[in-house]
Amino acid sequence: MKTVNTAKEVRTRVERWRCHGRTIGFVPTMGALHEGHISLIQAARRACDRVVVSIFVNPKQFIPNEDFGNYPRDIKRDSRIAAAEKVDLLFAPSVDEMYPEGFDTRVRVSDRLTETLCGLSRPNHFSGVAVIVAKLLILVHPHKAYFGQKDFQQTLIVQQLARDLNLDCEIEVQPTVREADGLAKSSRNGYLSEEERRAAPIVYQALKLAEGILQVGERNPRDMIEAVNKRLRSESLIEIEYVAVKNANTLEDLNVLTGRVLTAVAVRLGRTRLIDNIIVEVPSGS
Amino acid sequence: MKTVNTAKEVRTRVERWRCHGRTIGFVPTMGALHEGHISLIQAARRACDRVVVSIFVNPKQFIPNEDFGNYPRDIKRDSRIAAAEKVDLLFAPSVDEMYPEGFDTRVRVSDRLTETLCGLSRPNHFSGVAVIVAKLLILVHPHKAYFGQKDFQQTLIVQQLARDLNLDCEIEVQPTVREADGLAKSSRNGYLSEEERRAAPIVYQALKLAEGILQVGERNPRDMIEAVNKRLRSESLIEIEYVAVKNANTLEDLNVLTGRVLTAVAVRLGRTRLIDNIIVEVPSGS
Repeated sequence: MKTVNTAKEVRTRVERWRCHGRTIGFVPTMGALHEGHISLIQAARRACDRVVVSIFVNPKQFIPNEDFGNYPRDIKRDSRIAAAEKVDLLFAPSVDEMYPEGFDTRVRVSDRLTETLCGLSRPNHFSGVAVIVAKLLILVHPHKAYFGQKDFQQTLIVQQLARDLNLDCEIEVQPTVREADGLAKSSRNGYLSEEERRAAPIVYQALKLAEGILQVGERNPRDMIEAVNKRLRSESLIEIEYVAVKNANTLEDLNVLTGRVLTAVAVRLGRTRLIDNIIVEVPSGS
Repeated sequence: MKTVNTAKEVRTRVERWRCHGRTIGFVPTMGALHEGHISLIQAARRACDRVVVSIFVNPKQFIPNEDFGNYPRDIKRDSRIAAAEKVDLLFAPSVDEMYPEGFDTRVRVSDRLTETLCGLSRPNHFSGVAVIVAKLLILVHPHKAYFGQKDFQQTLIVQQLARDLNLDCEIEVQPTVREADGLAKSSRNGYLSEEERRAAPIVYQALKLAEGILQVGERNPRDMIEAVNKRLRSESLIEIEYVAVKNANTLEDLNVLTGRVLTAVAVRLGRTRLIDNIIVEVPSGS
């Protein structure tokens, strides 16, 4: 595995592969690689001739007072993991490489997709995501890029971005990888105290409750949201940020629970923010 | 010369050239080609192995009540001109090709560069420029792209955009081409009545006055702006939108006329808006 730190180097190497007819799979990450990232790398490995992984803790997607400074960084450990997964090229740029002095361009995707769910409590977070994903997809120019369903809102935004800016890349969304007790894998799980960690699976349990409620025929969004909230409130350490039910294609509100139904949750456990979601297909008229 | 109408076709053809080691020069236009565009094409022809020209009247860079509907369109005439200049590939997409149903992404470059000069009277104009130039540079992926100095503010915005989004393209700025009487070539000159056309050269005369004033040692921006305004006001058909003197690298105001001094003018002649500018290097301490 080769590691490069500059936009120019990654571009040159990938262009050479493309010109030789190789397909390129790309997994953009903020490092602190866990089994969720590994499943993305493995999906890229299965589908593409060459796999590129980026590791960049993107300051623009953290809002003030978030954990940018404390976000886990261990490039040596991440490199070992990437190499073991047969990644061909690791791109680990500095902040100055991605945002040189004088950088001053913003990319904003659809308010409909960004001004809801996590966008409400994290203003400018998705602008930060959009600009770094645009830059990475422009300079890596992969055939396919891989994202995890845990950040479902992000995947819709990135799909819209890729279409709108002609980024010439299929956005592949892979299922959320979970701990044995259901907690979604996340680089931020390491922030949890033992007590908080024991409480954390309530989030997935509440989402499975939503799924069950849909499966037994509930079609009223308010009743379902209330049931999910109630389950979450049964865990006293949990502070609920939102419980939302949306059309999973558009993030629009639903009057009736039908079609691709997204149930999404954001909570705080102590100082740690956790998100998770589940999508259920409800046949219309069922 | 080949003409294509889809992003996919232009990308495929250019990628093939790039993989064979050809350098690509790109001239994005809104059509209605005149000698200014031809000078850009010729500069591309001299410097690059292959020349791509796009013709797209970009609705997003017109503000409401501007001339989007009336903007001159004559693809046959433009094709003849491009072919005569040995353009290799003409890209003439439809509005739906560039902005398909559901398009909803904005690109904003530096307020410092956009919220001044023409940006003040044309809100969102430069966002419209930024998004279409980003899309075109992403999908054409040229080595060099050519813009005219007449739209000087646009050239700075595009340079910033290309740097910030890793567009991997040198932005080349070519001198303004003028009529014999000094009027800057523009697709909008055709809107002028005979009387307005006779009045129009006052704009360039006022800019040459600014140059002369700088050359004889004036260092006070306010005095120079007043002199340019006075010259423009001597033509009764002219309605002045702005006369501005700025640092040509940053578009910041100048307290003392030194360095690369931009003098920029926007006027209305009847219903036609004309812009022009001149840049003078004033050695510091001179």
